[in-house]
Amino acid sequence: MGDRQAIGVGLLGLGTVGAEVYRLLQDGDALARAAGRPVVVKRVAVARPDRPRQVSVPAGVLGSNGLEIVTSPEIDIVVELIGGIEPARSYLLRALSSGKSVVTANKALLAAHGVELFAQAESSGAHLYFEASVGGGIPLIKPISESLVAARLQAITGILNGTTNFILTRMAHEGWSFEDALAEARRRGFAEADPADDVDGHDAAAKLAILATVAFRRHVRGVDVYREGISRITPRDFIYAKELGFGIKLLAIARIHDGEVEARVHPALVPLDHPLALVPDEFNAVLVEGADVGRIVFSGRGAGGAPTATAVVGDILAVARHLAAGVRGRSLIGAGTGTRVRPIEDVVVPYFLSLQVIDRPGVFARVAAAIGEEQVSIASIVQKSRGEVAEAILVTHDAPERAIRRVQDRLRALGVVKAISNVIRVEGSV
Amino acid sequence: MGDRQAIGVGLLGLGTVGAEVYRLLQDGDALARAAGRPVVVKRVAVARPDRPRQVSVPAGVLGSNGLEIVTSPEIDIVVELIGGIEPARSYLLRALSSGKSVVTANKALLAAHGVELFAQAESSGAHLYFEASVGGGIPLIKPISESLVAARLQAITGILNGTTNFILTRMAHEGWSFEDALAEARRRGFAEADPADDVDGHDAAAKLAILATVAFRRHVRGVDVYREGISRITPRDFIYAKELGFGIKLLAIARIHDGEVEARVHPALVPLDHPLALVPDEFNAVLVEGADVGRIVFSGRGAGGAPTATAVVGDILAVARHLAAGVRGRSLIGAGTGTRVRPIEDVVVPYFLSLQVIDRPGVFARVAAAIGEEQVSIASIVQKSRGEVAEAILVTHDAPERAIRRVQDRLRALGVVKAISNVIRVEGSV
Repeated sequence: MGDRQAIGVGLLGLGTVGAEVYRLLQDGDALARAAGRPVVVKRVAVARPDRPRQVSVPAGVLGSNGLEIVTSPEIDIVVELIGGIEPARSYLLRALSSGKSVVTANKALLAAHGVELFAQAESSGAHLYFEASVGGGIPLIKPISESLVAARLQAITGILNGTTNFILTRMAHEGWSFEDALAEARRRGFAEADPADDVDGHDAAAKLAILATVAFRRHVRGVDVYREGISRITPRDFIYAKELGFGIKLLAIARIHDGEVEARVHPALVPLDHPLALVPDEFNAVLVEGADVGRIVFSGRGAGGAPTATAVVGDILAVARHLAAGVRGRSLIGAGTGTRVRPIEDVVVPYFLSLQVIDRPGVFARVAAAIGEEQVSIASIVQKSRGEVAEAILVTHDAPERAIRRVQDRLRALGVVKAISNVIRVEGSV
Repeated sequence: MGDRQAIGVGLLGLGTVGAEVYRLLQDGDALARAAGRPVVVKRVAVARPDRPRQVSVPAGVLGSNGLEIVTSPEIDIVVELIGGIEPARSYLLRALSSGKSVVTANKALLAAHGVELFAQAESSGAHLYFEASVGGGIPLIKPISESLVAARLQAITGILNGTTNFILTRMAHEGWSFEDALAEARRRGFAEADPADDVDGHDAAAKLAILATVAFRRHVRGVDVYREGISRITPRDFIYAKELGFGIKLLAIARIHDGEVEARVHPALVPLDHPLALVPDEFNAVLVEGADVGRIVFSGRGAGGAPTATAVVGDILAVARHLAAGVRGRSLIGAGTGTRVRPIEDVVVPYFLSLQVIDRPGVFARVAAAIGEEQVSIASIVQKSRGEVAEAILVTHDAPERAIRRVQDRLRALGVVKAISNVIRVEGSV
């Protein structure tokens, strides 16, 4: 073939992102200039080739046989955009084991099976790139793993899910309930019919696992990430948070302490002057921190076909350049899963507590005493009388989760506390 | 030698950044893991080797002979941290022509002589890396040139100089004059004894030239960047800007229109909801825009020894990986200087005009008519009577610079305009 010198690409999947990738890969001259060799889509596999598509793919290229793509000798780079665990996992292991390089946007697969995929890539000398798995078109994986390789990063704090950030932004700005804001997100096409993957934090947890793996150079899996969703946040929480100088965001947080990794996704109060406090609507942002570099923030539109496709094509071109130069793939992440994960009970942060208490003299002293008995100290208090019941809003100083759980037990046993309306972690010092 | 397999590094310069780089390069195990081969500092050249240093360098390594570093066969990567044009230019051309790779933080040199340096690197197959030349530790060059290679970027808007951003932040928050804010910047060690490089926009213009070259893949030189400094901005400008919903920043802006590049550094009104409006103090931020990716922002501490050193070491490791894999350097930037630069007279933006007019009936109609005669339309007006003289603050819609110059001539000829206090470009739609 005339273009056997070309880098052959096989696409698995031709949905919104896949169609954009296919379109971008038609600009042959620009690709050849950027890669040093022609880059040609040889095969595209979809479940139903007869369905109408956003792009027109020649009959000889479009098919339904994914296995053929991961085994064909004319394919050098397998681009996986089908999502989910199977058959993506089997296809990619097969591709990597036969020395093909892989570009994938599959966060769920990487978070669940990254260890075996990286190990297979390493042992085959194949490249495994995944910029598009986190943050859509925002460059994150390469800047963190390459540009910041000497920066000894200690913490990552991200708004990694656009749907939940849209919902929380609407709740904050319009005073809507969670349910109304979710309905609006659905109307705008942000939320899936089953929104659990977004609102319960699964999507953000998978992305955090990937970022932490890259930043800390040790495997962090989706299951290593503690996770709480946003459905229990109420409009009243936003009002009290704001009075105390905070917004509320679904944060994905990872830190490393002497080799032990802390990783969690949950709603959090954020001081209004925090770099992530004002990230609006469906935008994503990631704050990375290290003693040498201070705080660096990357932000942008974290999803969408076109931005995600630019990240996929950026990866394809990076791999193509390596292949053109004869460079073998090499993982910067250590082998194995021996990462020590800090149990959530040991995680130390300030807490926001919203309580309903009986409104009579001496009650507040009893609440404060109960908290103090667990060695938790109070940073600020707002109390609002509402007839027979008062609302007491407290923000504590740093306290371990296990102490806050005992505080709640004590408060419930007091008799004067009618209800603990909400307990929300605070990010950043109070 | 036992470590001839090692990548040999020669350092030119051992100031604040150089000392941090030297310190980071002592962590041999981590470097070897990241680079795939040992990375060893073989030589350091400084003007006065007898001066006390922040790091202790063995006598056999520290010397004063820069030429020896760029010619020695044991040096594979020359790291240039001396700054300025000569002798840096001659050293780096010599190093590149003998096939050594170069890592530099020298923005002034790249902005003035990038064309010949890139050409020499290309023809020698050497690597030329310069992440630390813009934005300190914020990853910009690689994310823009590699991760966003498929994003067809159309615009860059940056806060690229920390000193001027610190000064403007103090003026905005404290109502200080330019002179007082500059004095405070000096006290804090941000501003040099001769602050012209910062406050007149030279530093930002050099950085913008580098970013535009990388983003648009064609050479943009420092002299191609139109430049105005911040010394004429007054506390009153901040007050009026804020009333109209704007902050004031020193922006570095580059756009590409059908192959023609627009590049300029000047103070600008920015809407308060613009991603760069709230970048505080000495921080830097860069907004890149492309139709496919939307707006992506990178922000962080744009200077300082430690952050800049992490960027230099990131580059050294990237080059070391390439050398270990036997990859030749290849420039993604086209050859030659044939970039068409749009003259500032043809640049179209909205303008903020602050006028002192005689306070009597009919004056404002004459001002508005004079502006309309140049086909410039007015977006908003604030008028403040101050006795015999009123201040008239106008923001126009988009208008070419040449029209705004004619507007000023007309206003001066009117008789009723006592003074044009300031004319400031506006960034973002009004």
